[in-house]
Amino acid sequence: MFTLDPASATPLVLQIVDGFRELIRSGVLRPGAKAPSIRQFAHAHGVSVYTVVDAYDRLVALGYFVSRPHSGFFVRSRDSRPDTAAEQGPQYHFDSMWYLRRVFENRNLRLKPGCGWLPSDWLFGEGVKRSLRALASDAVDLGGYGEPKGFTPLRQLVRDVLAEQEIAVVSDQIVLTHGSSQAMDLVARRLVQAGDTVLVDEPGYPNLLFSLRFLGARLIGAPRTPQGWDLVALEERIVTYRPKVFFTQPRLQSPTGSVASLAQLHRVVQLAERYGVRVVENDIYADLDPEPRPSLASLDQLQRVIYIGSFSKTISPNLRVGFVAAHPDVLEDVAQLKMISGLTSSEFAERLAYGALIDGRWRKHLRALRQRLAQAQQRVAEQLERKGFELFAQPGAGMFLWARHPSIDNATTLAYQAAEQDILLGPGHLFGLDLQPSPWLRFNVAFADDEALWRFLSGATSSAGRG
Amino acid sequence: MFTLDPASATPLVLQIVDGFRELIRSGVLRPGAKAPSIRQFAHAHGVSVYTVVDAYDRLVALGYFVSRPHSGFFVRSRDSRPDTAAEQGPQYHFDSMWYLRRVFENRNLRLKPGCGWLPSDWLFGEGVKRSLRALASDAVDLGGYGEPKGFTPLRQLVRDVLAEQEIAVVSDQIVLTHGSSQAMDLVARRLVQAGDTVLVDEPGYPNLLFSLRFLGARLIGAPRTPQGWDLVALEERIVTYRPKVFFTQPRLQSPTGSVASLAQLHRVVQLAERYGVRVVENDIYADLDPEPRPSLASLDQLQRVIYIGSFSKTISPNLRVGFVAAHPDVLEDVAQLKMISGLTSSEFAERLAYGALIDGRWRKHLRALRQRLAQAQQRVAEQLERKGFELFAQPGAGMFLWARHPSIDNATTLAYQAAEQDILLGPGHLFGLDLQPSPWLRFNVAFADDEALWRFLSGATSSAGRG
Repeated sequence: MFTLDPASATPLVLQIVDGFRELIRSGVLRPGAKAPSIRQFAHAHGVSVYTVVDAYDRLVALGYFVSRPHSGFFVRSRDSRPDTAAEQGPQYHFDSMWYLRRVFENRNLRLKPGCGWLPSDWLFGEGVKRSLRALASDAVDLGGYGEPKGFTPLRQLVRDVLAEQEIAVVSDQIVLTHGSSQAMDLVARRLVQAGDTVLVDEPGYPNLLFSLRFLGARLIGAPRTPQGWDLVALEERIVTYRPKVFFTQPRLQSPTGSVASLAQLHRVVQLAERYGVRVVENDIYADLDPEPRPSLASLDQLQRVIYIGSFSKTISPNLRVGFVAAHPDVLEDVAQLKMISGLTSSEFAERLAYGALIDGRWRKHLRALRQRLAQAQQRVAEQLERKGFELFAQPGAGMFLWARHPSIDNATTLAYQAAEQDILLGPGHLFGLDLQPSPWLRFNVAFADDEALWRFLSGATSSAGRG
Repeated sequence: MFTLDPASATPLVLQIVDGFRELIRSGVLRPGAKAPSIRQFAHAHGVSVYTVVDAYDRLVALGYFVSRPHSGFFVRSRDSRPDTAAEQGPQYHFDSMWYLRRVFENRNLRLKPGCGWLPSDWLFGEGVKRSLRALASDAVDLGGYGEPKGFTPLRQLVRDVLAEQEIAVVSDQIVLTHGSSQAMDLVARRLVQAGDTVLVDEPGYPNLLFSLRFLGARLIGAPRTPQGWDLVALEERIVTYRPKVFFTQPRLQSPTGSVASLAQLHRVVQLAERYGVRVVENDIYADLDPEPRPSLASLDQLQRVIYIGSFSKTISPNLRVGFVAAHPDVLEDVAQLKMISGLTSSEFAERLAYGALIDGRWRKHLRALRQRLAQAQQRVAEQLERKGFELFAQPGAGMFLWARHPSIDNATTLAYQAAEQDILLGPGHLFGLDLQPSPWLRFNVAFADDEALWRFLSGATSSAGRG
C-alpha cells in the first residue's frame, strides 16, 4: 500500500488520508473495494487505532470512503459521491455526521455521559402508559392525515403553556412538528438560502449546525459566556457580517448549560430590531427550568422571534413531538413547508403527548424531574471540580455541564479512548463551528453521576488525553 | 380601488391581479392591510366568486397577499416575502400549496371524492387498537431516540415483505421514515440540487412536484398512458434533457390509476442504465394490488432503483410510517439526512405499525380491503361512464380513477363549485407540471361511490363547468 513516516512534519492522520487518496486516484483501489479494517491497518503500520479512526473518518468526510455498518469501509463509487462533495456548495459533513450516527447507534454502550437525552426512568413513563391505554379505548379517526398544523387540543394546550410564560399566541400561530429537530429544519429551510450568513451560538447544537451547513449557510459564531452571550462580540459580528438570522438557545444551553439574564435578552432583541435580524429561539429545555424566567419571545411577542419547543426532554424523545410558534407571516410558510416535506405530523403521537400532559401527575412529574436534575448537577459539578476540571458555568438546573481539564488538549482523542471502555463522551469538536479539536467536554448530569466515569477520567487525566 | 373591464382582452382574473399589484406597489394598500373579502369584492365588482378566488390565489402565489385562516387576505409585509419570490431560484408555489392545505383543512367537508386517503372504517382499526393495548403493557424504553434507521423488528419485517416481492435486501438497506412523504423528500434532497433536470410522471403526485420545485429542480414530464408510460416520449426526453433522476410510480399510479406492464418496467430499467438515470420508485399502493406483480426494484435489485413504500394506505396515515430501501451508497446518506433534518422517526409509531402487521388478522384485512376497493372501482367506473365521462384507465384495483367529461374544460372551476356544495374534488391542474387548467379529475373510488356526487355531476355536466 503505502509507507508512513513517523518523523515527517506531516501528521500521521494526513499521511494516511493522502495515501488512500492517491491509491484511489491512481486506480489501484477501485470503487467498491474494501479498505483494510481499522485494526488491520493500525497493526500493519504500527500506529494507534485512534489515528486510523480519525483518518478513515476524514476519508468518509471527503467522499472517498463509505462506511457500511457491520461490514467496514469501502471505496465510494464515483457516481454515488455527492456531486459537489469536496469542491463547493452545500455539503454533507460526513465526518461529524458519522460520529453523530455512531452516538445514536451506540445506545447500548454501558455509560453515556455524552448523550443528549434523559434516562428512561427519569421520563414520564406512567403518564405515557395511561395515555396509551386511553388512546386504545378512544375512537380515534384512522382515516385522513390529521390537521396540517397538528392536533388542535395539543396546540391549544401549548398556547396555554406559552401564555403562562407570558408569550401571547393564538393556537393558529402554532405548528406541531416531528420533534424540535424538524421544527428547526423547517424554520431553517424557510429562512435560509445557500450563501446566506447566519449567526449561531458558539459552541452550539450539532444537528442545527449540520442542517445549516447542508443548506449552504455561512455560519458566524456568537460566543457564549456563562451569563449568556459576549454582547460586544455579538454586536460586532452583526454589524460586520449582517446576518439574516440568529439561531440561539438562551436557556440552559446545550452544550454550555449557560442561562442568559434578562438584561442580555433585552439587548439581543434590541440588536435584532435595529439590524433587522430574525431570531430563532430554541427553548427546548424550558420545562426543565425550575424558575419562571423571561425568554426572547416573551420580550418580543413573536414579532421577530420564532419560538421552538419540545416534549422530548420531559415526556419522551420517542414520541417525536415538538412545535414552532411564530408570526403568521412566517408560520403559514412553515406549515406549508411541513406539508411539502412530510405531510402532517403523527396524530397518534400528538394524542399520546396530549394525554400525558393532561394527566393528573404531570406537574408532579415535572417538579420531581427538576429536583432530580438539580441534585445531579450538584454532585457532578463537585466531582468534576474534585478531578481538576474547570466548569464553564454552573446552572444548577437542566441537563448539561461544559468542562475542560488542564491535561486534556483534544477531547476527541479522549472520547475514542472512552468508547473502547464502553463509555460515550461528548467531545467539544462536535459543538464547534469549525469542527476542530477542542479541550471541552459536554457532560449530561443524568448519566455522568457514575463511579465508572470518575475512574476513567482519573486515569485519563493523569496519564493520557494529550493528542 | 380599480375598475374591471369585462370587454377587455385581458381576462378578469389578470385584471384583478394587476389591479392589486398596482395598489400595493404605489403604496395605496400598505403591508398588513386587509384585502376585501372574496364575497365583498365579487359583489362590488359584479364578478364571480370563483374568479376572485383564482385571482387571490395568484396574488398569494406571487407573494403580494398572505392568507390567514379564519381572518382573510392581507397585504404581505415586504421583508417577510421569500426573497427570491417572483424572480428566481427555488420558489414556494403558494397557489397550489394553498389549495392543498385547504384540501387538508377541509377534512370536514361532507363528501371527499378528491382526497388521497381511505375512509377510517376501511383501515385496520382493530389491529391498531390491539397494537396500542399491547404497547401499553410493554416495557417500552422511553429514553434515547431509537435507532437512526428505525425500529429494527419493523425493518426486518419490511425486508421479509420485500423478499416476497422478489426484492432482495438486508435490513440495513432500509430506513424507516415519517411516512412516504418524508422518504420522498429525503431522497429528493439527497439526489437533487437546484438547477438539476428531473423526470417525473405526468400527471403525477402533487406533493412530490412541490418538493422538487422547492429544491429548484427543472421538471420534465414523462407522459403516462393506460399501460404505463409513453416509452417513445420517455426515451426522447431522456436523450434530449439527460435527467439526473426519474421519480415514478409504476403501480396503481396517482392520479391515473394506471399500472405499468412487465415489458414497460424492463424497458425503463434498460433506459435508466443506458443513460445513467437514477430511478425513484414510489410503490405506496403495492399492498392494495391484488396481484403479485414485478416492480422496477425487483428487476434492478436496487442497483439504480430507490424503492419507497408506506403503511398509510393499509394501516393508517395517522401513524406516519413509511420506508426507503436502496443501495447502501445512497441509503447511508439518506439515513444521515434523516438524522440532520429531524433525528430518528417515532419508535412509538413504528412499534404500533409493527404490532398491527404481526396481528393475526392482518392478511385477512388486506384481502378484504382489496376486495372492497375492487368493488368500488367497478361501481364508480360504471357510474362515471353512465354520466358520459371518459376513463383514462380501468385498473380494477387501488384507489383512483382519472376521468374527464366532454362538457368540462376546466376541472378547477368545477372543484370550486363542488366545494360550495360541501364536496371536495381533485381537479387535474394539481397533478400537472405547469399547474395549468385541465379537464381531468381524480376520483377516489372509496369516497366517490355516493349518490350526492352523482347528483352534483349530473347537474354540473349538463349546465356548467365551462370556464
